[in-house]
Amino acid sequence: MLTNPRADRVRSVRALSKRSVRERTGRFAVEGPQGVREAVRYAAPRVRDVYLTSEAIERHADDIVGPARAAQLWVHEVTPDVLAAMAEADAPQGVLAVVDTAGDSLDDVLAARPRLLVLLTHVRDPGNAGTVIRGADAAGADAVLVSEASVDVLGSKVVRSTAGSLFHLPVVTGLDVASTLSTLRAHGIRTLAADGAGATLLPDADLDGPHCWVMGNEAWGLGEPVRAACDDVVRVPIHGRAESLNLAMAATLCLYASAGRRPSGDPDG
Amino acid sequence: MLTNPRADRVRSVRALSKRSVRERTGRFAVEGPQGVREAVRYAAPRVRDVYLTSEAIERHADDIVGPARAAQLWVHEVTPDVLAAMAEADAPQGVLAVVDTAGDSLDDVLAARPRLLVLLTHVRDPGNAGTVIRGADAAGADAVLVSEASVDVLGSKVVRSTAGSLFHLPVVTGLDVASTLSTLRAHGIRTLAADGAGATLLPDADLDGPHCWVMGNEAWGLGEPVRAACDDVVRVPIHGRAESLNLAMAATLCLYASAGRRPSGDPDG
Repeated sequence: MLTNPRADRVRSVRALSKRSVRERTGRFAVEGPQGVREAVRYAAPRVRDVYLTSEAIERHADDIVGPARAAQLWVHEVTPDVLAAMAEADAPQGVLAVVDTAGDSLDDVLAARPRLLVLLTHVRDPGNAGTVIRGADAAGADAVLVSEASVDVLGSKVVRSTAGSLFHLPVVTGLDVASTLSTLRAHGIRTLAADGAGATLLPDADLDGPHCWVMGNEAWGLGEPVRAACDDVVRVPIHGRAESLNLAMAATLCLYASAGRRPSGDPDG
Repeated sequence: MLTNPRADRVRSVRALSKRSVRERTGRFAVEGPQGVREAVRYAAPRVRDVYLTSEAIERHADDIVGPARAAQLWVHEVTPDVLAAMAEADAPQGVLAVVDTAGDSLDDVLAARPRLLVLLTHVRDPGNAGTVIRGADAAGADAVLVSEASVDVLGSKVVRSTAGSLFHLPVVTGLDVASTLSTLRAHGIRTLAADGAGATLLPDADLDGPHCWVMGNEAWGLGEPVRAACDDVVRVPIHGRAESLNLAMAATLCLYASAGRRPSGDPDG
């Protein structure tokens, strides 16, 4: 039982709330039962330590502690004070894990012959980034690509808003937009810029072959060079008086439009 | 020019950040140029005062100040200190308005023979509520209905996340869920519960006639009595490993599925 909130180990976990520490150590923290459960289930080889309060050990005996022990992971009992000192969130519900960065690369993603991708360019809001990763997972996308100068997807707010989806599909970060678009095209993947100024309406977009949605920044959208470098520029129809949709909603609608066109569109079919 | 951040008028505007004050006075504050522009454009009779810094008066001469003066609204020049003292947000970009509550009622909404509605039951997160209002607007919904025990849609975070859509369509609040469902049915409006446990997949849902999407709380979804009281329970297909979508994403997908089935689905058509 870890009882000292000022212990070195506790400090080193808490330090993972800093991007520089995450990058130096190649580790990040996952807070809360949902994320930790999915990490244990889908990324056990990367989970270094799982920390739970006594209460959480009882509550999550079946969905976290059992599977973690079965995977021979380190499971540590800690006091509520220790968990609070480790966590960035106010209420991680007694559960936290330290996980190695996946280090997914674009080459790995392309080698798996993806059918559906999404590229986030210069996304800044943690909630948006996390929600898009969750939506991409739900829509059955093969990976999420994130450009350089974007929010760190291993920050606690992003991790939390992915609701575990971060461990369900590869998330490649730090990409240069222009060279990524060239690489995708060279691999026969159509690039579709999602933009309110697009000439093609979403219901009319060609979504039959492998393709990648390219989403812009929350505030200023996609720049003209990026739009010009894509195979098509597609807009979600606006039926009312709204000027636009927010990034996460637009991405979800685009990704689900793609999912709906795939032969495997009905998961029960 | 208002220059004293401690003036009574400034305090009374700032007090609108409290729900109790909004309810007592029947007014709320709109912060930032996007919301104020839409309020002036679509709800001018309800706008009591518009406050702008000198810089904002120049920047928004055409889209806010001109239309506000044309509508004979009170436009006040204030110092940045006064605006900061009035506003709840850190960065309202020099623009704030005080607006009367619309007081939309379900009877008013039904009298307009709506085709597409959404009912939010016990929604608690301001960002979710605002995003659903924005998505409902974009999908061409006729109104948003909000149950009692929900977040106050006139709070600053909700207002901001609607991105002006709050002034584009009626938002009826404080509704009892059970009696609202009965009333809708009595008016020939099908009620569709959106729920991950639904037997009907979204692409197969009957969306031809007038209908209302019924969305649950972020954490616990819809209760069994509400599901049972609806005409159908519909689920958004999950193609990957995600457990669910968040409320705003699910609502947007449902509302856009409805929009896509309407004869007027293509806004340019």
